[in-house]
Amino acid sequence: MAELIDGKQLAKKVNAQTEQAVTELKTQGIEPKLVVIIVGDDEASRIYVRNKNRKAQQLGINSETKQLPKDTSQTELLKLIDQYNQDETVHGIMVQSPLPSQIDEAAVTRAISPAKDADGFNPENVGKLYANSDLNFPVSCTPKGIMTMLAAYDVQIAGANAVIVGRSNIVGRPMAALLLNASATVTVVHSHTQNMQAYTREADILIVATGIAHLIKGEDIKPGATVIDVGMNRDENGKLTGDVDFESASKVAGKITPVPGGVGPMTIATLMQQTVELAKWSE
Amino acid sequence: MAELIDGKQLAKKVNAQTEQAVTELKTQGIEPKLVVIIVGDDEASRIYVRNKNRKAQQLGINSETKQLPKDTSQTELLKLIDQYNQDETVHGIMVQSPLPSQIDEAAVTRAISPAKDADGFNPENVGKLYANSDLNFPVSCTPKGIMTMLAAYDVQIAGANAVIVGRSNIVGRPMAALLLNASATVTVVHSHTQNMQAYTREADILIVATGIAHLIKGEDIKPGATVIDVGMNRDENGKLTGDVDFESASKVAGKITPVPGGVGPMTIATLMQQTVELAKWSE
Repeated sequence: MAELIDGKQLAKKVNAQTEQAVTELKTQGIEPKLVVIIVGDDEASRIYVRNKNRKAQQLGINSETKQLPKDTSQTELLKLIDQYNQDETVHGIMVQSPLPSQIDEAAVTRAISPAKDADGFNPENVGKLYANSDLNFPVSCTPKGIMTMLAAYDVQIAGANAVIVGRSNIVGRPMAALLLNASATVTVVHSHTQNMQAYTREADILIVATGIAHLIKGEDIKPGATVIDVGMNRDENGKLTGDVDFESASKVAGKITPVPGGVGPMTIATLMQQTVELAKWSE
Repeated sequence: MAELIDGKQLAKKVNAQTEQAVTELKTQGIEPKLVVIIVGDDEASRIYVRNKNRKAQQLGINSETKQLPKDTSQTELLKLIDQYNQDETVHGIMVQSPLPSQIDEAAVTRAISPAKDADGFNPENVGKLYANSDLNFPVSCTPKGIMTMLAAYDVQIAGANAVIVGRSNIVGRPMAALLLNASATVTVVHSHTQNMQAYTREADILIVATGIAHLIKGEDIKPGATVIDVGMNRDENGKLTGDVDFESASKVAGKITPVPGGVGPMTIATLMQQTVELAKWSE
């Protein structure tokens, strides 16, 4: 049986470090502040945002939620973002997805100041990531959290064959950049890939972020591989389940994340960590 | 024998289109202008810059070369770039590599306005490329030129297995992004990769950009593959040669670029094309 990569436990450790960093910043007169903007009344979004808020408050981060009506225009939203960009007490800004159809998500992403980009989605930050810049800049929280997990579980990255299933801007692409920067051989496979298994079966590190429940089974995994499951799907009984079939996969993998309790908690912990980093870097 | 991908011929076609576009822009009162900044007296750089200048002038592009002494400070260079950023008659700016050691190349890259970034190296443009933005933005000329070659020679990209050898910011990384955006399965291999041949032998499209003469031989290539050689090395007799051993590779590949006469001419043609695009987008 594979060793379990316990995201919940690791998130606790990361959160404790974040709490400590917040305490230190406060002694220097800096109170890290995160603003989360939510447009409309999507129920899942509300729950996510409430969880982020609660976690921020637990860690001593000043967290503000700005709830906007679902008919908010793009101009209004961009104006609000600009106000927070100018506000020196705010260190991190994020806009909860999904956004109503009248708003262009890419434009919102570009509007958030790169220095306050809690999600790491601004093209300037993405470009720095991709070019492996040695400056300080924020990075998409899910793949950044996965890097923390790999480090905590002593997974060798340099020279490893890393395969990423899925090419989203939030997970697959920044994950590829982070692993390439860390000197893995990196392959990105996706819906157009022919014979996906030929790639996944060779992976020393397999990251799965497709939104397709149980796409990856034990037979698709190299024995001893590290398997990271980014999926968060509901099965027919409403139970949370991953993109990896845990039961068969955990018999083949060397290390594996569960769903829930794997990548999820680490993503929120990383958002908190990154908010505090933004506050530090703003000094 | 493989079909030859004739970069010299294709560059002529692209240049003819660029010349036509310049003529059209001039009827609208826009004269595309490219500024090339060169710091110091590196002989190879001077030749590159002279060739760029000559080509620009042939195509009707207003081309200015700014030669700075090799002891130019970073502050002076950034100030000059800013002047060109402000100058409305200038559409494209590029700074020739290599730069003297007192100058931080990454800082120069960030200083050039994204809207005038003829080389496509500014992080904001890199981020747009990597996130597959649907806006207009410049892209690193060598990989952009390779995409033009693949299209001209009817190479199927979506679903193909593309392997890139080398992970530089100028070629390997933007090449990976372009091919991923075009729905290839993309693998980046590099100096830390174990058993490189295991990857190259499976590639339908193989892009080689390592600076190691004849790294890739016929036996490393999948029969029928398209092989793009970005290498520009001098052999013991001073003759220009690629990263691919053309003699053995051309017996296995389906399509292959020669060196010289492959990627090289397309890079300059793409720089000219992109300068004119920047002028168009500035309207």
